[in-house]
Amino acid sequence: MTSSKNTNAKLWGGRFQEQTAASVEAFTASVQYDNRLYRHDIAGSKAHAEMLAHQGLITAEEGKLIQQGLDEIEREIERGDFIFKPELEDIHMNIEKALVEKIGPAGERLHTARSRNDQVALDIRLYLREVSLNFNDLLKNLQLALVTLARKYQHTIMPGYTHMQRAQPILTAHHLLAYFEMFGRDRERLSDGLKRINIMPLGSAALAGTGLPIDREFVAAELGFPKVSANSMDSVADRDFVVEFLAAAALIQLHLSRLSEELVIWATEEFSFIRLADSFCTGSSIMPQKKNPDIPELIRGKSGRVTGNLMAILTLIKGLPMTYNRDLQEDKEPLFDTIDTVGPSISIMTELLAHLEFNEERLTQATIGGYMTATDLADYLVRKNIPFRQAHSIVGRTVAYGLEKGLELDEMKLEELRRFSELIDDDVFAVLSAAGSVNSRTSIGGTAGASVAAALDKALQELQ
Amino acid sequence: MTSSKNTNAKLWGGRFQEQTAASVEAFTASVQYDNRLYRHDIAGSKAHAEMLAHQGLITAEEGKLIQQGLDEIEREIERGDFIFKPELEDIHMNIEKALVEKIGPAGERLHTARSRNDQVALDIRLYLREVSLNFNDLLKNLQLALVTLARKYQHTIMPGYTHMQRAQPILTAHHLLAYFEMFGRDRERLSDGLKRINIMPLGSAALAGTGLPIDREFVAAELGFPKVSANSMDSVADRDFVVEFLAAAALIQLHLSRLSEELVIWATEEFSFIRLADSFCTGSSIMPQKKNPDIPELIRGKSGRVTGNLMAILTLIKGLPMTYNRDLQEDKEPLFDTIDTVGPSISIMTELLAHLEFNEERLTQATIGGYMTATDLADYLVRKNIPFRQAHSIVGRTVAYGLEKGLELDEMKLEELRRFSELIDDDVFAVLSAAGSVNSRTSIGGTAGASVAAALDKALQELQ
Amino acid sequence: MTSSKNTNAKLWGGRFQEQTAASVEAFTASVQYDNRLYRHDIAGSKAHAEMLAHQGLITAEEGKLIQQGLDEIEREIERGDFIFKPELEDIHMNIEKALVEKIGPAGERLHTARSRNDQVALDIRLYLREVSLNFNDLLKNLQLALVTLARKYQHTIMPGYTHMQRAQPILTAHHLLAYFEMFGRDRERLSDGLKRINIMPLGSAALAGTGLPIDREFVAAELGFPKVSANSMDSVADRDFVVEFLAAAALIQLHLSRLSEELVIWATEEFSFIRLADSFCTGSSIMPQKKNPDIPELIRGKSGRVTGNLMAILTLIKGLPMTYNRDLQEDKEPLFDTIDTVGPSISIMTELLAHLEFNEERLTQATIGGYMTATDLADYLVRKNIPFRQAHSIVGRTVAYGLEKGLELDEMKLEELRRFSELIDDDVFAVLSAAGSVNSRTSIGGTAGASVAAALDKALQELQ
Amino acid sequence: MTSSKNTNAKLWGGRFQEQTAASVEAFTASVQYDNRLYRHDIAGSKAHAEMLAHQGLITAEEGKLIQQGLDEIEREIERGDFIFKPELEDIHMNIEKALVEKIGPAGERLHTARSRNDQVALDIRLYLREVSLNFNDLLKNLQLALVTLARKYQHTIMPGYTHMQRAQPILTAHHLLAYFEMFGRDRERLSDGLKRINIMPLGSAALAGTGLPIDREFVAAELGFPKVSANSMDSVADRDFVVEFLAAAALIQLHLSRLSEELVIWATEEFSFIRLADSFCTGSSIMPQKKNPDIPELIRGKSGRVTGNLMAILTLIKGLPMTYNRDLQEDKEPLFDTIDTVGPSISIMTELLAHLEFNEERLTQATIGGYMTATDLADYLVRKNIPFRQAHSIVGRTVAYGLEKGLELDEMKLEELRRFSELIDDDVFAVLSAAGSVNSRTSIGGTAGASVAAALDKALQELQ
Repeated sequence: MTSSKNTNAKLWGGRFQEQTAASVEAFTASVQYDNRLYRHDIAGSKAHAEMLAHQGLITAEEGKLIQQGLDEIEREIERGDFIFKPELEDIHMNIEKALVEKIGPAGERLHTARSRNDQVALDIRLYLREVSLNFNDLLKNLQLALVTLARKYQHTIMPGYTHMQRAQPILTAHHLLAYFEMFGRDRERLSDGLKRINIMPLGSAALAGTGLPIDREFVAAELGFPKVSANSMDSVADRDFVVEFLAAAALIQLHLSRLSEELVIWATEEFSFIRLADSFCTGSSIMPQKKNPDIPELIRGKSGRVTGNLMAILTLIKGLPMTYNRDLQEDKEPLFDTIDTVGPSISIMTELLAHLEFNEERLTQATIGGYMTATDLADYLVRKNIPFRQAHSIVGRTVAYGLEKGLELDEMKLEELRRFSELIDDDVFAVLSAAGSVNSRTSIGGTAGASVAAALDKALQELQ
Repeated sequence: MTSSKNTNAKLWGGRFQEQTAASVEAFTASVQYDNRLYRHDIAGSKAHAEMLAHQGLITAEEGKLIQQGLDEIEREIERGDFIFKPELEDIHMNIEKALVEKIGPAGERLHTARSRNDQVALDIRLYLREVSLNFNDLLKNLQLALVTLARKYQHTIMPGYTHMQRAQPILTAHHLLAYFEMFGRDRERLSDGLKRINIMPLGSAALAGTGLPIDREFVAAELGFPKVSANSMDSVADRDFVVEFLAAAALIQLHLSRLSEELVIWATEEFSFIRLADSFCTGSSIMPQKKNPDIPELIRGKSGRVTGNLMAILTLIKGLPMTYNRDLQEDKEPLFDTIDTVGPSISIMTELLAHLEFNEERLTQATIGGYMTATDLADYLVRKNIPFRQAHSIVGRTVAYGLEKGLELDEMKLEELRRFSELIDDDVFAVLSAAGSVNSRTSIGGTAGASVAAALDKALQELQ
Repeated sequence: MTSSKNTNAKLWGGRFQEQTAASVEAFTASVQYDNRLYRHDIAGSKAHAEMLAHQGLITAEEGKLIQQGLDEIEREIERGDFIFKPELEDIHMNIEKALVEKIGPAGERLHTARSRNDQVALDIRLYLREVSLNFNDLLKNLQLALVTLARKYQHTIMPGYTHMQRAQPILTAHHLLAYFEMFGRDRERLSDGLKRINIMPLGSAALAGTGLPIDREFVAAELGFPKVSANSMDSVADRDFVVEFLAAAALIQLHLSRLSEELVIWATEEFSFIRLADSFCTGSSIMPQKKNPDIPELIRGKSGRVTGNLMAILTLIKGLPMTYNRDLQEDKEPLFDTIDTVGPSISIMTELLAHLEFNEERLTQATIGGYMTATDLADYLVRKNIPFRQAHSIVGRTVAYGLEKGLELDEMKLEELRRFSELIDDDVFAVLSAAGSVNSRTSIGGTAGASVAAALDKALQELQ
Repeated sequence: MTSSKNTNAKLWGGRFQEQTAASVEAFTASVQYDNRLYRHDIAGSKAHAEMLAHQGLITAEEGKLIQQGLDEIEREIERGDFIFKPELEDIHMNIEKALVEKIGPAGERLHTARSRNDQVALDIRLYLREVSLNFNDLLKNLQLALVTLARKYQHTIMPGYTHMQRAQPILTAHHLLAYFEMFGRDRERLSDGLKRINIMPLGSAALAGTGLPIDREFVAAELGFPKVSANSMDSVADRDFVVEFLAAAALIQLHLSRLSEELVIWATEEFSFIRLADSFCTGSSIMPQKKNPDIPELIRGKSGRVTGNLMAILTLIKGLPMTYNRDLQEDKEPLFDTIDTVGPSISIMTELLAHLEFNEERLTQATIGGYMTATDLADYLVRKNIPFRQAHSIVGRTVAYGLEKGLELDEMKLEELRRFSELIDDDVFAVLSAAGSVNSRTSIGGTAGASVAAALDKALQELQ
């Protein structure tokens, strides 16, 4: 054929005069982590081969051989019999090479009208679509655990806090449902992001599309994509859907960190609001009495890495020119790490909630005192036609008096209260109790028993 | 009234025995930056007052006084006659205090059934709704500028790059439309996020809702919100919509950074692909010959701060317990800074594109050589039934030969080409030209003239 | 002179054919924030002019005029009489232009052998040197406040926590001194970073040095720099010292966030470990009884922005080629924002600590119970020659028994304790008290009274 | 002994009534990644045991057994014969358990006066001390590669850039030495950070120190630490040294990203400044002609993850109260990932530089034109006593004229030049050549041949 010496054995090595350095192979290989995409890579290749056959770019027979070969490779991988080779760089080349070894020349036709640039984009999209749907299910389970717990403590009053200071009495269920809302938004965001994941890039080839008569819509239909990507250059350069997913996932973990912080605080001796099951805590290697809330601590701590992973991908794409640059290979590990972090965090939080008990006695006790119904007193005065700002001031001074005398509002005598406003009457004591306060807050989204019951019903419906 | 000494003059100072320290006032004040929310704060207060009057919580007369007073304050602020006082902490207290001074006791009724916790949530939502819509418009203009430029260079062939190496010839318009896609996704994301911004929190009060007979739906309707928030605790603790906006905005700026990187590179002497207008460049204080692409450099650099602002807010909410904590005040400056960065970056990039010329001669020249039609030769062989992987290898060796001899593919004689494959015939030279290559890529999203023309039509339709 | 039309009035505008667009001026101007460098810019220019005169590059008379002109400008700026003009871009051009207006042609000689590239590097270094030293002082004051508080509560026992669970009794002073160590490390880091700030870049000119006979060492000596930069290209491209400072500053704020978290928790009703002065708290616009620990909350929240600012600068320099790129202008706002955040946070925390009281009664009460001396019991058994791991297990079972019976370790009868190990004798009760436990821990760095007293002495010495 | 049912088999399980849930074990285990600390854990344990024996807390015989047992375990791990068990949580418990199985009760004495809290702090410090020293060596090698390359191209002139626009001619060696400076600072920073790593925490025990008569200085001497930590609570809560290392490492990678960006740009067809060895590039799966600079692309991309890892740890420690919290377990993976990223990136960049050739012809050609000696002309006028600002303006207009006429400065006739200033004489042409320009810049740190030769000498000396 030609005299041109060629010593590079890579599938792409035709033009190269030297072997790739071993250190370069080691540094550039990705198969040690992108092998998790094997199912998606194979599914994509099967759809691609089917299209090639359908378009007459390969024969039906070749198509069949490819399907069988790929199926066999998939089974080998699942059995653990497949050996991934770093010198073959990535999951794509590992599988293609194995296919050629298995079925011969037909295998060499698979990469027709395709590049690794669009192939990897397809694989990540297929994978991330699956993960997004899975996360949605995990979050739904977590919401269910919250609702279940909320129903168990539907009527238990506890202090509501702002600035970590007791503010107003609330229902424990109302507090838990705040998290129901957060995780609900997370599900919405995943669902919105899915629209931008669910786009079929194959056929963009290296960057410019292909001159071979392919049918991109065929592949899309085969793989369940509602649409194909519109610009081949953008298709191979785009990792926006990864960024968007990582941002959504970071927010999930941050929501979990907020809940975890509360659990850690509630589990302190000083709060004693909850009891975590022994099976969900661990002990100390030195202090025999310790029982530590490791799960929420770890979940909280893991918010660091998911935030970091988002930062990683943002930094990655900063200033990258068109189209595919090798930098993009670095999208995968942050993505995988976030998935491996957030998924299990949601699951174990779900389990943990099922192994958590509120200390109702302690919660009730904590709603006594702390002047938590001061706003109710102010609103009482508003109903008596005092402008709110004046009412606030009157009650402020009443509280100051109480602090001086060591008296809670409902421990004061009527005469004492009336020193601050003569409009205060006997009926005031009804609004000064925690239960009275809670049940008065019947505005939509408020903590009154009826509002919370309605919210619970709505939540259960949504979860059906 | 009472003997209790009270020396704190704050609106909330009733229970306090000491004046707030001056250093504390300075450290905690936010009015120096949250004053930009004045229109939204006033709009929210007006809707709230209207509802209070409608519900009989204040008289119609009081309601009218409040509306007039607030209108007057708005005019004062817009005229620059309003003095914001740090000792009044924030925009809310500054306006409420001014209202009371202006209209007396009626003003003291405005804060009925409301807390700053839900008030500030409302203000940010109103503001961010406006900004989101504005960003959508700005992005649309940028897309239009891209399409306009693409149409101007619709038929100009240039090198397409991967790894910054010349890969395949493409149309300049095709390259520009890749950015059209990116900014289109940005618009989608803003629009999705808007669903979660566009929720009315007022009536959540401090954290638990209120016992006063308010009508939240009334306020929502008044302010154009399609729904009210479902859980009062979540309502005052939630800044997810800020995070989501900052994530979307960071991605916009990163897209701009990619485009900017290309412009900077294209404007080098070595590339000379574009010429930026003098009016869009600046010079050097020391080197008289310099003409620098400052605008894209700055836009690229500004991707740092928007990424940083996103990280700021994520760090902020990590581990925050329910419900409102003062930490949340720190949401505003990163948000405002991102808005003030991204908006102008989009605008000036739009302007810049209108002042940019491609050097068509240079682009054309750059598509000659570099073996950019090697893939076309491989595809040619595929059409002759050579398996792609073999075709790739044949062409690889052909390129190696060319490098050795200093010959481009289309400079080789047929005999030379046939040394690598006897299937190569005279008709090969048609596929070896840049124009032939470009026009062959007719797959959807490909760079062929027809595909690009269709994409341009579609783009223009979308922008209508 | 020449016919070449020139309509650009900029100092660098000689070669430009068009006016800079107004939008470009607005987008690129930095004087609105870099004007804070005016003192450093002037000091740098004065030293530069002195050197120019010394080297005969300007006359002594010109040198004198420049010094006087710059002094006058400095006074004008300090009086607020100087008008900064965005169209003159930055602090450097604003001052140079004013100088020329003031003293004529001599002013036009100031920029000899200098570029804005090395000038701005000099300005930031001068500024940051000052800030670093100032931060060192602020941190020293904070350390002093910690020591002062520690001495006040030198003998007060409180629970030490791991995992927020009571672990072992400690001295309050010991806890506070943990923060003394952290801020001490911060000071060390600032001091180490200062070595890399304190390098004189002027004379690097645009990027390549200058051919005019300047004396860089002269300027360095004049401005108190121990050395001059070694490579002109690196000098104008380097912002490492900014990154290093921002990293050190982020860690300071994170240390403050840890202390703040503790203060917020300690100030809860449930802990009630501390009382913050009224003058250091604020109230609620709706809940008249609230007294909120806003200062530590805000400090904690501000850890977001300093982290974000560090990320901003890291993103900024990612992938920047040599040498100066306009992107680098974006180094200033994150830097200034961090300085304006961290400095005041340190100061107000220092003040706050002086207005904080521990509730000693409550602390003492909290050390009773919780099996916090379980480790002491295990160590007691170790002294009786039981392997630690067995001792740990024995005590673990003893604690389990106590939990079952509702008995603390020191509430058990000797017979009960001996059911777990017959080696336990009457002398065990000495190690089961909080005081006994604390005072036994005499290892270096331990919490025993003597160790803490020594640590306090050492701390005071260091602060002298 | 006792009737108390105990079903938890953990080493810390004495007080627990339930088995740890399997999901909890899986979620909390760290041995899958912290096993890389085995050498440091064993070294720490050996020193600890020696001290225990020295202090009489264990017998000499027990001490000897422990040393032998640990040595045997180390050999097993190194042979790959040791099975790490996730249910034993971490490297510490895995080794301790194996030791007890191997040597019996003596093994149960090892954990005397020690907690995993101080143990893990010791392990990381030992590990990071080693890594820091190793990174120093790697960076030194990289510096050597830069110097070697610089010497090879010591006299080769190339364009120096600002804003990616040709600015002034420089020596290639001068450009490369800019990176020598950067990596030199990185080494300094690692060395400074080492001071804060190199502190011995053992003996802090859980958090409060220990009552057993240990000798911390003995352990420090044994392990080569110059000092012991000063406060036991800080010792177990402190990860500052990890943050500092991650910040220093991020900056190293960002420096590499800057160099990588230049290599990628220089390797473009348009620049053609360098040629990378085939063995250090890879090809395309679709485009047979491609030869891509994957190594610098990947290095540049990896700046994302190291930035992200820093972000992770900063987020992690935000708001963590004293002392040890389980969150801190999350310090390791970001740390390890950064180490595994930065080390190999330095190494392969070092190798790459040895396989890189500059295209001298092309570099020389690129210094012709572009008005790069315009500053030299201005300085020429300054020497003729024209104020610099006027000289700048004169040259600016000369350049504008040249652009209009298509003439470089040295292509103009003297008469043409004199139209802009009559002070220009025949001698001007000496300063208008690239070589003349370069060699004039003799200021310290400038690009003149003599300055660069001196810098090279100094660099070589430093590397000895």
